[in-house]
Amino acid sequence: MTAVHPDIAAAIEALPLVDHHVHSLLTDPLDESDLLDALTEADHHWSRETALDTQIGFAVRRHCAPVLGLEPFADTETYLAARRELGFDEATARLLRASGISHYLIDGGYMPEQLLPEQRMATLGAADWAPIVRLETTAEAVMAEATSGADFLSSLHEVLDREAERALGWKTVAAYRCGLDLDGAKPTEAEVLAAAEAWFALGSPGAPSRLEDRTIVRHLIWWALERGDTVQVHAGFGGTNLRLDGADPAGMQALCAATEHTGGRIVFLHCYPYARQAGYLAHLYPHVYLDAGLSINYLGANADVVVRETLDLAPFGKVLFSSDAWGLPELVLLGARLWRDSMARILSEYVEVHGWPVPEAIRIAELVAWRTAETVYSRSFAPAAVAAEAA
Amino acid sequence: MTAVHPDIAAAIEALPLVDHHVHSLLTDPLDESDLLDALTEADHHWSRETALDTQIGFAVRRHCAPVLGLEPFADTETYLAARRELGFDEATARLLRASGISHYLIDGGYMPEQLLPEQRMATLGAADWAPIVRLETTAEAVMAEATSGADFLSSLHEVLDREAERALGWKTVAAYRCGLDLDGAKPTEAEVLAAAEAWFALGSPGAPSRLEDRTIVRHLIWWALERGDTVQVHAGFGGTNLRLDGADPAGMQALCAATEHTGGRIVFLHCYPYARQAGYLAHLYPHVYLDAGLSINYLGANADVVVRETLDLAPFGKVLFSSDAWGLPELVLLGARLWRDSMARILSEYVEVHGWPVPEAIRIAELVAWRTAETVYSRSFAPAAVAAEAA
Amino acid sequence: MTAVHPDIAAAIEALPLVDHHVHSLLTDPLDESDLLDALTEADHHWSRETALDTQIGFAVRRHCAPVLGLEPFADTETYLAARRELGFDEATARLLRASGISHYLIDGGYMPEQLLPEQRMATLGAADWAPIVRLETTAEAVMAEATSGADFLSSLHEVLDREAERALGWKTVAAYRCGLDLDGAKPTEAEVLAAAEAWFALGSPGAPSRLEDRTIVRHLIWWALERGDTVQVHAGFGGTNLRLDGADPAGMQALCAATEHTGGRIVFLHCYPYARQAGYLAHLYPHVYLDAGLSINYLGANADVVVRETLDLAPFGKVLFSSDAWGLPELVLLGARLWRDSMARILSEYVEVHGWPVPEAIRIAELVAWRTAETVYSRSFAPAAVAAEAA
Repeated sequence: MTAVHPDIAAAIEALPLVDHHVHSLLTDPLDESDLLDALTEADHHWSRETALDTQIGFAVRRHCAPVLGLEPFADTETYLAARRELGFDEATARLLRASGISHYLIDGGYMPEQLLPEQRMATLGAADWAPIVRLETTAEAVMAEATSGADFLSSLHEVLDREAERALGWKTVAAYRCGLDLDGAKPTEAEVLAAAEAWFALGSPGAPSRLEDRTIVRHLIWWALERGDTVQVHAGFGGTNLRLDGADPAGMQALCAATEHTGGRIVFLHCYPYARQAGYLAHLYPHVYLDAGLSINYLGANADVVVRETLDLAPFGKVLFSSDAWGLPELVLLGARLWRDSMARILSEYVEVHGWPVPEAIRIAELVAWRTAETVYSRSFAPAAVAAEAA
Repeated sequence: MTAVHPDIAAAIEALPLVDHHVHSLLTDPLDESDLLDALTEADHHWSRETALDTQIGFAVRRHCAPVLGLEPFADTETYLAARRELGFDEATARLLRASGISHYLIDGGYMPEQLLPEQRMATLGAADWAPIVRLETTAEAVMAEATSGADFLSSLHEVLDREAERALGWKTVAAYRCGLDLDGAKPTEAEVLAAAEAWFALGSPGAPSRLEDRTIVRHLIWWALERGDTVQVHAGFGGTNLRLDGADPAGMQALCAATEHTGGRIVFLHCYPYARQAGYLAHLYPHVYLDAGLSINYLGANADVVVRETLDLAPFGKVLFSSDAWGLPELVLLGARLWRDSMARILSEYVEVHGWPVPEAIRIAELVAWRTAETVYSRSFAPAAVAAEAA
Repeated sequence: MTAVHPDIAAAIEALPLVDHHVHSLLTDPLDESDLLDALTEADHHWSRETALDTQIGFAVRRHCAPVLGLEPFADTETYLAARRELGFDEATARLLRASGISHYLIDGGYMPEQLLPEQRMATLGAADWAPIVRLETTAEAVMAEATSGADFLSSLHEVLDREAERALGWKTVAAYRCGLDLDGAKPTEAEVLAAAEAWFALGSPGAPSRLEDRTIVRHLIWWALERGDTVQVHAGFGGTNLRLDGADPAGMQALCAATEHTGGRIVFLHCYPYARQAGYLAHLYPHVYLDAGLSINYLGANADVVVRETLDLAPFGKVLFSSDAWGLPELVLLGARLWRDSMARILSEYVEVHGWPVPEAIRIAELVAWRTAETVYSRSFAPAAVAAEAA
């Protein structure tokens, strides 16, 4: 392990971060099982021992306790007591602000009823925020009101157009619904209509079936890309209702190729263990990007491997930062902390072993931290603006 | 490369190991080609040069020669002469005992006619042992006596019940027979019967065809899991009659999901190059475990990569140690030696770079070395018991 | 990162290299966009920023500028000006000769009309060369003159036999045409004839359709292997008309198994991110080899990971060196430079951490650098011969 270069460490520490894919936080009160459940993608409740004897458990114990005024690796009772004593707001604010994240792009589509309003999270974090809207969730809400497939489609575009006014980007969970091995071609109107009628027929009025139709999913992605928008694509590691090898981004190569000239952008999220495949697509197609959010948190002391994989084939200006935290401010802090530490180690090695100039290494870190997010989301996230907002 | 922490190295060196998946040893006399053939999964005989110019060859030369009183990297003639001079029993005992393995769980299903009785191996190794029984091999032996598919099934359950009295666990080589991309659902009685008749029809009386039927294989796995037993699953790298990408444990996700509540446990063995996929399943399903046996031996000086991969997503209490040695006590020693060295290096890095407390690092090593095996096999492997037995 | 052992570094620096898979160089004059386009497998033109903010861009900036008399990381204008001032021949000669490559095996099948005659490249590089002939390109040229499928086949074998007089080996781009997931069995004459007629029917006289037929592709591979020749197989990472997961060498396992006794040899090229899968095949089948050319250049400061992967399961005598450079002498130099540096680091770690004797480490490097190429191509590439030729 190369020693970390002090100038690189200091520069990365000072970088503001755009967390371009994150979720809001569980509301007060939190009990121990809420905290433990948020450390896993599994469906069953983990024992404290199982939850904490993990990379993510060790990383939380190391990095979060000091922010609450405790020693690293404080025991669970001490940690929970300190959290209670500080109170929800203070503990949350401390953890979020220690992350150095200046902007949250919040995907509100997963269990929003359990979570804080996004603005509340942003305020506690002294940060700005903007919404990312889930395509499948939106379509399902429309279908719940629809009287036929055709009715669904006409309402869908109305609702999507309205959502587009607030959305900074879109998210697809195709990996959970039909897998990423999708045809590339834009589905025809007739195909979309037939698929909508078939989906309608699977449910009953007010109780639509889950959207798993590949044609509708492709239609939603094409619709967003042809608007010139950004679509975030869940790839790789996720929960039990996702089959891992169906979430390989390589499956979406045809769709990446077919949408190159739409004006829209695709960002593969998480990607474990397929970050190299996502990097390959980011290399080949000018509108494809990737991150290693979620993976970094779950890999903890092993995170360097995946951070390094994002820096293989993808041009450095195609890599983004996210925490993919859900529910706990601990996970927001962890995403930032582990990313900064990994980048500092990796870039220090590039400098010491591979002769990179220090300013070049820092410039690349800055691309990933926030500059590339400006390209992807067509919005300024510059530190000056951040500073002005915070004042 | 971080320096190895002396306390971690010492603690790992002192750990007893449960080798939860290993085979017995070739009988005396051994000639050079027996030794060379045991260094490869290939079918053809390798030249001495090819066999030794490998990671496993270099690792054997480095680690085994000193146990026989030679310099590391002694040449082959010197090594073979020393082995002959010590005699089979003494050479075997030295190599086995240098491993620090206290318990062998022995899969007797591969070429047992060439191998020592298991108790002889255990005695030479001053260790305890218990049998792991191969499901497919057992079924094939039953089919060899069967007069119909229905007759096969009625005898099968009788034989399996009898085998269950001695077996500490079961092994499936589905990866070699039909691949791991299996349906999850428990096959119905009618499906099993139809499959048994079809399989019966493929062979002739006394000469059954090889078991490659997916329904029978699933039936065997379900049967063992519903007993509350542990099923070891060969995954990844193996011999020429296995197609690598059909041995990806990700293919077994549906079966893992469907069997979560059976009370049984699944352990993915070896897993190269799919240890990350196995770790994903161990993360999601409470009854799924993994090891990197075989891979570690074959990777030698590169083994840290796969040992680290087992410590990605899987809770640390879901990772087991095995050597998967077959035929040679050298491979038993190597499995232990390389695992101890890799763990010492990786855990030292976790301590030095990632701030883990030293006792926590040692505790995790102990989980992998033997404690988790107690959970998986519902049996005590505690060092005290070991010491008492050895006395 | 282990310190590099000075004796290993010096020995590797002095090794002549056989670049067993490379292409010729773009002709004079070169403008900036020619240089930038050669740094990517993408179809679209990259901006200077995108092209240079990559691993390959940083590696070129670091390693090539000094060969032209500049500081590492000289800016692009300075670099281009220095290149122009030296003149095409001098700049090319400097870059090629700095690589220490003694022999080029040149695949002339990709855009040859843009490239220097091979002999000119060899002369500028003070090296020897020999041709590698593309099977699919050859077949397409024959089909352009054919009047039927049967006519194609009769001419094909005539042309192939003639090409065999000059070819030192063959190359297949099956990965681009039909994917590598191929049946193993040798296609029958009737199958080949039917496939040839079907392919003929897809085109029009003088304008054959692109060869994508799996039977014809297998026929070409079998033909070459049964001659006892070597077939290079593009695997993994490539351009946009290749689907990544269809280029996994694991797909060719059946064909490897079926051709083991033909007398021919198969070399998987590039392999990213599937080098482990290729190494598995090289372990199992005596006639299978691999390299990590192309991948090394594109991974730059991350190249150690893939170089290390080639040293996992494959016997060390099954690994070859190539640059897979196309168009630019910079890429030839880079292939050699990055490989030497990675091998020096990895072998130094094997010595320091894993106890390898230094002469053994150097011997393994020599196998990869040129000795194994002698086995694969049945030709002497010994340094003495090189020296005599160069004199």
